[in-house]
Amino acid sequence: MMSLFKDAVSVSHWWLQTYLTQGMVAVDATAGNGYDTVFLAGRVGPTGRVYAFDIQEEALRETRARITEQGLADRVELIHAGHERLLEYVNEPINAMVFNLGYRPRGDKRVITRPETTIEALKGGMTLLVSGGLILLTVYTGHPGGEEEWTSLRQFLVRLPKEKWQVVKLKFLNRPEKAPFNIGIQKYG
Amino acid sequence: MMSLFKDAVSVSHWWLQTYLTQGMVAVDATAGNGYDTVFLAGRVGPTGRVYAFDIQEEALRETRARITEQGLADRVELIHAGHERLLEYVNEPINAMVFNLGYRPRGDKRVITRPETTIEALKGGMTLLVSGGLILLTVYTGHPGGEEEWTSLRQFLVRLPKEKWQVVKLKFLNRPEKAPFNIGIQKYG
Repeated sequence: MMSLFKDAVSVSHWWLQTYLTQGMVAVDATAGNGYDTVFLAGRVGPTGRVYAFDIQEEALRETRARITEQGLADRVELIHAGHERLLEYVNEPINAMVFNLGYRPRGDKRVITRPETTIEALKGGMTLLVSGGLILLTVYTGHPGGEEEWTSLRQFLVRLPKEKWQVVKLKFLNRPEKAPFNIGIQKYG
Repeated sequence: MMSLFKDAVSVSHWWLQTYLTQGMVAVDATAGNGYDTVFLAGRVGPTGRVYAFDIQEEALRETRARITEQGLADRVELIHAGHERLLEYVNEPINAMVFNLGYRPRGDKRVITRPETTIEALKGGMTLLVSGGLILLTVYTGHPGGEEEWTSLRQFLVRLPKEKWQVVKLKFLNRPEKAPFNIGIQKYG
């Protein structure tokens, strides 16, 4: 039986699955351990492309190993840079962009995404996004700095003009207050 | 281009579409003008069944006209009773249940859904729901009584044990505070 609301990451994958098809272009703003990159690369297929950013070399090594193992490396470009530099590295329209905020699981917990760079990356993604395109963020507020990041991000999101952007938040009502949640942003088609 | 987050009703239909298939049994707790009944009846097909409740005769007339016009009347049972009496009328497992709270558009705005009966109906639906089954509510807080209904409903939802129920809220971040929102409840499969 299909579980729609298992956790924030599976909600994100479900929504992407609804939208992403073969040949599309996607950005993984936070490669981390590579799970989202693998998911995106599978969806866009051999004719698509995925740009995966991370500032940590170890994250890119993990991601490279994972996509190679799955035979998906041909369509993935790994970029060792902060996602706020998106527009320096990506010069084509994108269909989707994914953020998994906070720190890298099993990585250095002091290395976290930060409000200014997250919002800068988001703005870059919104610039490249096609009509109908989708940006999804999984947001964590349980670690030091997480609440501050969400406060800044929220201020940015609530001001996006509703004529151009659909912005939603999905949260679990019967889980701890600090459980991760989803933000979905779609550009009007 | 597919718009995922157009409005609360279309989010509800999208989620149902992901889950409902031919032969399933669904309940429309608030037939209203019949739009949800038509949607459900189309999804469950000729081998499925839809039970549609409303306390207003005019609502059932509207709904009957709409399902007849669409050739869907064969699989729909219209019930002229409050949805809190669900268990008196439905004696089989159900796959899904839909609530569109508040008042009936173009109907008598003084006739609104109320916390006690909404929660009673919800409990009934949860009793009949199969594993993996889905209950969706579209919640309105902009009318008199709406905020009170949501407060009661929320108290009920946050206490549902997370081992048995997945309960989510989806709201629009860049629309007015009183914009309708979605509640999704799935029973663990």
